[in-house]
Amino acid sequence: MRAPLCRLLLSFLVAVSPLYAAESLTGFPAGQATKQLALEARHDAALKAENLKTWMRELTTRPHHLGSPKAKENAEFIARLFREWGYETEIEVFDVLFPTPKTRELSLLRPFPFKASLTEQIIATDSAAAALAKESLPPYNAYSGEGDVTGPLVYVNQGVPADYEVLEQHGISVKGKIVIARYGGSWRGIKAKVAAEKGAVGCIIFNDPLEDGFTQGAAYPAGAYKHDTAVQRGSVVDLPMRPGDPLTPGYGATKDAKRLPRSQAETLMKIPVLPISSADAEPLLKAMDGPVAPAEWRGALPLTYRLGGGQTVVRLKAEFHWNLVPTYNVIARMKGSQFPDQWVLRGNHHDAWVIGARDPISALVPLLEQARVFAELAKTGWRPKRTILFCVWDGEEPGLLGSTEWAEHHADELRRKAVAYVNTDSNSRGLLSIGGSHSMETLAAEVAQVVPDPQTGVSVSERLRSVRLVRGTADEKKEFLTRKTMRIDALGSGSDYSVFLQHLGIASYYIGFRGEGRGGEYHTCFDTFDHYARYGDPDFSYGVALAKVCGRITLRLADAEILPFDFNAQAETLNRYIADLVKQADTLRETTDTHNKLVADDRFRLAADPKEKFVPPARKDPVPHLNFAPLLNAGKNLKDGAAAFHKALEQFHAANRLLGTGETEQLNQLIYQTERALIHEAGLPRRPWFRHQIYAPGFYTGYGVKTIPGVREGLEERKWTETQEQITHTAAALDRLARQIATATAKLKE
Amino acid sequence: MRAPLCRLLLSFLVAVSPLYAAESLTGFPAGQATKQLALEARHDAALKAENLKTWMRELTTRPHHLGSPKAKENAEFIARLFREWGYETEIEVFDVLFPTPKTRELSLLRPFPFKASLTEQIIATDSAAAALAKESLPPYNAYSGEGDVTGPLVYVNQGVPADYEVLEQHGISVKGKIVIARYGGSWRGIKAKVAAEKGAVGCIIFNDPLEDGFTQGAAYPAGAYKHDTAVQRGSVVDLPMRPGDPLTPGYGATKDAKRLPRSQAETLMKIPVLPISSADAEPLLKAMDGPVAPAEWRGALPLTYRLGGGQTVVRLKAEFHWNLVPTYNVIARMKGSQFPDQWVLRGNHHDAWVIGARDPISALVPLLEQARVFAELAKTGWRPKRTILFCVWDGEEPGLLGSTEWAEHHADELRRKAVAYVNTDSNSRGLLSIGGSHSMETLAAEVAQVVPDPQTGVSVSERLRSVRLVRGTADEKKEFLTRKTMRIDALGSGSDYSVFLQHLGIASYYIGFRGEGRGGEYHTCFDTFDHYARYGDPDFSYGVALAKVCGRITLRLADAEILPFDFNAQAETLNRYIADLVKQADTLRETTDTHNKLVADDRFRLAADPKEKFVPPARKDPVPHLNFAPLLNAGKNLKDGAAAFHKALEQFHAANRLLGTGETEQLNQLIYQTERALIHEAGLPRRPWFRHQIYAPGFYTGYGVKTIPGVREGLEERKWTETQEQITHTAAALDRLARQIATATAKLKE
Repeated sequence: MRAPLCRLLLSFLVAVSPLYAAESLTGFPAGQATKQLALEARHDAALKAENLKTWMRELTTRPHHLGSPKAKENAEFIARLFREWGYETEIEVFDVLFPTPKTRELSLLRPFPFKASLTEQIIATDSAAAALAKESLPPYNAYSGEGDVTGPLVYVNQGVPADYEVLEQHGISVKGKIVIARYGGSWRGIKAKVAAEKGAVGCIIFNDPLEDGFTQGAAYPAGAYKHDTAVQRGSVVDLPMRPGDPLTPGYGATKDAKRLPRSQAETLMKIPVLPISSADAEPLLKAMDGPVAPAEWRGALPLTYRLGGGQTVVRLKAEFHWNLVPTYNVIARMKGSQFPDQWVLRGNHHDAWVIGARDPISALVPLLEQARVFAELAKTGWRPKRTILFCVWDGEEPGLLGSTEWAEHHADELRRKAVAYVNTDSNSRGLLSIGGSHSMETLAAEVAQVVPDPQTGVSVSERLRSVRLVRGTADEKKEFLTRKTMRIDALGSGSDYSVFLQHLGIASYYIGFRGEGRGGEYHTCFDTFDHYARYGDPDFSYGVALAKVCGRITLRLADAEILPFDFNAQAETLNRYIADLVKQADTLRETTDTHNKLVADDRFRLAADPKEKFVPPARKDPVPHLNFAPLLNAGKNLKDGAAAFHKALEQFHAANRLLGTGETEQLNQLIYQTERALIHEAGLPRRPWFRHQIYAPGFYTGYGVKTIPGVREGLEERKWTETQEQITHTAAALDRLARQIATATAKLKE
Repeated sequence: MRAPLCRLLLSFLVAVSPLYAAESLTGFPAGQATKQLALEARHDAALKAENLKTWMRELTTRPHHLGSPKAKENAEFIARLFREWGYETEIEVFDVLFPTPKTRELSLLRPFPFKASLTEQIIATDSAAAALAKESLPPYNAYSGEGDVTGPLVYVNQGVPADYEVLEQHGISVKGKIVIARYGGSWRGIKAKVAAEKGAVGCIIFNDPLEDGFTQGAAYPAGAYKHDTAVQRGSVVDLPMRPGDPLTPGYGATKDAKRLPRSQAETLMKIPVLPISSADAEPLLKAMDGPVAPAEWRGALPLTYRLGGGQTVVRLKAEFHWNLVPTYNVIARMKGSQFPDQWVLRGNHHDAWVIGARDPISALVPLLEQARVFAELAKTGWRPKRTILFCVWDGEEPGLLGSTEWAEHHADELRRKAVAYVNTDSNSRGLLSIGGSHSMETLAAEVAQVVPDPQTGVSVSERLRSVRLVRGTADEKKEFLTRKTMRIDALGSGSDYSVFLQHLGIASYYIGFRGEGRGGEYHTCFDTFDHYARYGDPDFSYGVALAKVCGRITLRLADAEILPFDFNAQAETLNRYIADLVKQADTLRETTDTHNKLVADDRFRLAADPKEKFVPPARKDPVPHLNFAPLLNAGKNLKDGAAAFHKALEQFHAANRLLGTGETEQLNQLIYQTERALIHEAGLPRRPWFRHQIYAPGFYTGYGVKTIPGVREGLEERKWTETQEQITHTAAALDRLARQIATATAKLKE
């Protein structure tokens, strides 16, 4: 009997050898760790790729944007599944403002006439062709302004503030003009917002083939990439100001909620905005006059990219149906056996811009499979200690509508009960990407060390580490030569976690695999089942891997005796952000001084080619020395407090102490509510909805995160007094966090 | 009387205020400095832009490549001018191997047939159109191999060794195949040489519009840029091995010189090479199969750049007339009044690939004007102390033939007599660019501080400083905030200074203005008078500025009591190079160790997309610690010796000492022959013709310089024993230099 057992053990060791050998599991005392890992192994083993494929096919037969018949059908289909599996399930409806196109027109008037088609060519061989022809929304930007405007065209590159500085140096203003910006470099809404701020009367956004067209590879269906008629749809609501229904700021858009008149809805775009294909953009760009665009501004179309000299004139017309439509949010509960009032939330949206096989169905079907397996486990006697909520949101695409309205409506209960929110949005073959609250970095890293990468067999964490080591920045290479565990990213916005994390202070994750699924199908009518099954994740193995990662994280959060939050990791990261800000202020002061010296010495004019129009940059106001002491002290304090907590916890476990259920509940509430301490009730300057002091989408980057945003954006926008105030607010938040941790530490020592 | 004088002085101060206030002038005792500056002011004032224009028109009426009737006519015209001005003038002829095309054919055989036109479209409105149609050389690469080869096409990006590493990682070999490389990133000859080394049977080089076509601006004649049929001609002789006539290595190609049989001429390219236009390249690239090229490899043609999967087959045929042709070198002398056996040489070539308005006539005509004004000054009683030689070379384009053969033939005399060689090659509107021997850095910087930039009025040095401050690297910005004088670059190759500097050890300069003259006309039939007068330097003011810079440098070298060599500047630069090499070795050791760790841990495979063919890189041999002590000691020694020399010189001047003519001659000979000390007679590894221990063209970069090349390339090519030997050779050269300087110091103290 011994030999075979040895062989079995050996083969087991070989199979998992690159994976994490879990001697300890954060949140689980030694005895429970083994049991927990066994449960997770059963979970993983029960996941079936075939289910993902079947459900994706079912959910992607027709376009299912917010307000469409198929979106409602999908919500009902999903609710039916949850009910079949035994979940307490309801569809919660909110009524939100959702404009759809009435008129979309774009013409070149001078130097030659051209009318843009604004139409995507449907690929006849795609199995969704008939459905696409029948009921898809045409390419447009939701929440665009309305208008019929005519003006000279100016090319603004990616349309971020720095691009306008370049235009100013060329003596070009966009006031009263229509800008054309290429996708990339920022979230699309920023392009429109900045254009409007600069005085433009209209904004066109196009897909340059450099980013996701022929430059990358053959177009669909010959290859994965963007067809020259394909257009990226998308919202241009002012997301970095506030997501959710524009008419019900900060509260749920229930049937009888008080709604702002549209004229007072400040997140609506002021000027007409229209997305177009590279095929429609090419004649416009070919017609452009004026100075040649800088090298980094040039795309892949076969023409000389120019900035616009005033003689290329376009007309842009946009009108919309401004309807209130219902969002169908599916909420399914599995009640906790010990702590029913502690909720672990797991969410993904179901609405798409068109068919949405990748965005969002590729990540929704792993959520469903995770839920199905949880139900199976429940049938074998397991019950989660804490309540698990599966949330399938509607209306994410136009502006995170379903999740935001639901969470705003249930805000008080969520503040008390929500342990964490685990979000996904889309998925493909590739590398694990996790952003989230840094108190949960260690949990993510431990899970990533036990889930195998489907293609290589090593853990998804080791695969990621390999990529950092081979293709990372110099700093990453250096760090990961010795660091064995992954880091998680800070979260900006662009998916349903925003309201949980940044409005309510609920620790959150955003998880997906990406990087090897090819394609330029994002938000086009080419994001179909056929495309995904060829280029996204053909065997759905990364869908299963996503279910494993999210499933294990959910299970640990639901079942941990003491929640696996790691305040040491959090403190280390926050102190890095603080050090970075201090350095940023110093660098800004030095570069400003140098800049002003160069201005004073006329160096910019002397360096320019006198034959080309050039407006030298102006002097900048000098950067004062700011008092960073409150932040530095708070950071130090937090670091010490985190260390004390984990030392106390270690001693607690070493002494084999156990708390009673009520005390455990209280301790865990203290732990998960640490994230609430980072909320400053007044919010960030000029956007009170965003209240988290550590993570926010950049006001001028959109999805891209700004860490310690009050301070960082104060510096970037050169508002010195405000920066100093924000230093105080963030320091106060860190102090609140340290106090909360200290209370938990005291509880451990009672 | 006083008021007007004051006003005059005031206006003088205003006019030159941004310029260098020359209180002292290196090489000239206080009293003589004023006289010298007055002479130079007369020189500058006498220069006439009109002459440049007239001569350019005369010299560019027809194509004048080596061996053409017009090249001979131009040499005779130039000689006639020199004689008229009173120079002792001769045309020295050497007979060199110069192949011209017999057969050039390029066809795509699979997947569809296409025959390349290999013809540049002549612009009918250009005044040179008729002459171009009649007698220009078609696009070809001189010294290409001959052959009729057929094979699959592989895209090798810019064709440098690093590009082949990328191909290897994609599992692609070029053995038995034909490569297609785009211009840029290296000298063209490197592309062919590396292709042949890697086993390719043919090499095609094309102009991608990204570098100098529509991406940059409108094509000639609507704009300055490259027409899609334009082709860059050029030599592919193995220049980094040895320039000059391939059949007479190291000695002059006189009529009766012993010539190698062609089969033994090792600098001839082994495989057929052909340059083509973007119009001819587009169908070939469109036909390409295989993996998509990496992002940095992609050009501006509207297609997916691919590496080549074996199914795209081309045929390339090239045959040549292998003629011996005469080079007509015009040598004009103005004999020195005090030191006739000390020669200051000033040179520029006269042959072109086609019409050559910019390359080389734009820089030749300032040389002629400089010579005319020197002759005028001579008529007013001035005579240079040293002999001035104006050298107008033939056959530069195919391989620096005229200059190399002439200098090899006169080697012994040059070693004794040559003070310095001042080279130019082409010129346009823009910024001053000076490369050269660092013992002459201060001289160049002092001259650049008194010559005004034609467009801005500040000195050309301050204009350059402004550009470094505004657009330079971080290091440059930092340095030039405090450093008031410019630096000069180290010299690689690609123009006629090579034989003087790198074979004979004669201190040299290579000078030109560039950067604002627009165009893609380089080595095409579009490099005409019309093009240059519109886009190069329309008012020839930068031609005049070049004459001022070169004229003043020549005058100071010719007239200085004690030659203005600055060994402190030289020692500072050489010690930077040494420190850089030590750091490079350390970095190479660290990156090799990291690489080998990643190889051992299988990180490259784990980081790659398993769905794409990928061959992980191999382990590299570790980098041993090398003994840099000899170099570091020699550098320190040189620094001290240089400081001692300049201290002695200061004391010499302070004491108002004067040496007799013979002693002055000896001292100056010691000074200018310091550059000879840097020659190592055995030359560099595998290329004995290149003997300078500090400057050489990179064996795998072509024109691009490698400083301390023996050591640097030893490291780069991972030849550790050789690197150690080269450290010894370079240290010995620095020791010789230090001894030579010490002898000069002793002379000053006698």
